[in-house]
Amino acid sequence: MTDELTFVSSLARRLGPAPAGETWAGDDAAVVRPPAGELLLAIDPMVQGVHFLETTADVGWAAVARNVSDIAAMGGRPLHALVSIVLPPGADVALLLDGLVEAHEGLCPIVGGDTSSGATLVITVAVTGTVDGTPVLRSGAHPGDLLFVTGPLGGALTRPPPRLAAARAARRAGATAMIDVSDGLSLDLRRLADASGVGVALDAVPMADGASWDDALGRGEDYELIFAAPDRDAVLEAFASLEPPIEIGVCTADPGECRLGDGPLPEGGWEHRW
Amino acid sequence: MTDELTFVSSLARRLGPAPAGETWAGDDAAVVRPPAGELLLAIDPMVQGVHFLETTADVGWAAVARNVSDIAAMGGRPLHALVSIVLPPGADVALLLDGLVEAHEGLCPIVGGDTSSGATLVITVAVTGTVDGTPVLRSGAHPGDLLFVTGPLGGALTRPPPRLAAARAARRAGATAMIDVSDGLSLDLRRLADASGVGVALDAVPMADGASWDDALGRGEDYELIFAAPDRDAVLEAFASLEPPIEIGVCTADPGECRLGDGPLPEGGWEHRW
Repeated sequence: MTDELTFVSSLARRLGPAPAGETWAGDDAAVVRPPAGELLLAIDPMVQGVHFLETTADVGWAAVARNVSDIAAMGGRPLHALVSIVLPPGADVALLLDGLVEAHEGLCPIVGGDTSSGATLVITVAVTGTVDGTPVLRSGAHPGDLLFVTGPLGGALTRPPPRLAAARAARRAGATAMIDVSDGLSLDLRRLADASGVGVALDAVPMADGASWDDALGRGEDYELIFAAPDRDAVLEAFASLEPPIEIGVCTADPGECRLGDGPLPEGGWEHRW
Repeated sequence: MTDELTFVSSLARRLGPAPAGETWAGDDAAVVRPPAGELLLAIDPMVQGVHFLETTADVGWAAVARNVSDIAAMGGRPLHALVSIVLPPGADVALLLDGLVEAHEGLCPIVGGDTSSGATLVITVAVTGTVDGTPVLRSGAHPGDLLFVTGPLGGALTRPPPRLAAARAARRAGATAMIDVSDGLSLDLRRLADASGVGVALDAVPMADGASWDDALGRGEDYELIFAAPDRDAVLEAFASLEPPIEIGVCTADPGECRLGDGPLPEGGWEHRW
């Protein structure tokens, strides 16, 4: 019990005061202003022994960042985060706490949470967001739309940034479908194609420096975005002040098609998301 | 992987279609309409071996209900729920799934979620809500305000209902502070008093049929609400069509005071919440 209390009261104390008219940690629920536009909602668990081994600051950061990336993948921006933590007895979570506070300051305000004891450390973050305009779903791609990724894949960065600016640019460029690469290019591209009822034909898979073929196809921890858009010039214009996205192929009219060059796109990736 | 996929795709399929203009499970984030009033946010984990032993339907129901109770405790009403589940290999969660679907239909729509494998089954639910008017915090009670509970304490009901109608009535009656009894009367009443900077003097602790003294003071799974309000007649009028709340005492001007009759209110309850 002491571990839990120390953790949550330490976190709550370090979050700082809520803006006037809002109530953050410390009541039955947080009270915040609603957005004017659509409300986006995402949740994502990280489990010790599955997603991470040691409770470093990077884990606290990533627990928030992966949710922020889900909001980015809708063309949106994050508003508020809630943190739920299951703590085994004696867990040393000082660094995890540091990472959460850094995420609070750098990614998305943490406005509340709850904790419990338990045999395995699990950190679950839920994030709200909104979008200025229409959210970009996975399901809007049409045959003939071009396919882009926001950067080379399979990199092993320590704290990859959620691609918020790139996501906004893609939305402004008329992106018809978008998804973040959370389980690997193969799996996430198929999800976009299946949701849209299109096929995909890729020319190339852009690989990060030092990435293996398996890394590029099957790794999904760098928050790059895949998006479909009909107009190459509009994309280049919307990304004028950003790193330009990499064109990787085109959507086809055959929903079963999933091709890289003349062969099938190899399978890969982590299948545990909906 | 198969267990997880089966679970989440089964759940998503059973949630039914989203209203026009909204997107529920199946994209990177759910898209819903924002409320006109304040946005309330709560999150709460339930851990196998800590909060429950068997994965029954009641567990799925309770995972949502305890969050809905947090929204009720603000005088609000729930809007949307997200579910995150960590599943050990081979977990039999058919009943848990049934309970979630029943909660979706009876308590609050489940609009998305995520899952992971892990050694211990953890079900974490986050809920959004709103309030018609001003949310009732824990911190607004004044010396002289009367203290009420919405029902006798320590009962062992199978599916106690979150007290949404009573919470709304308390808010309309001018409640100055409110909290749901989640960790026991002793602890939760102290939280309300501490947040408000008042003391409390109780005349009685209303006990449910069959409840022991420890149950009534230390159990918190029946979602009763404690609230403070200055005007008894206004409370009775607001509750005219509901089971009337039970007056248990009064707020005092001495912040350290926590009294039952002529002695101290015994301690008790589960200390793992902020």
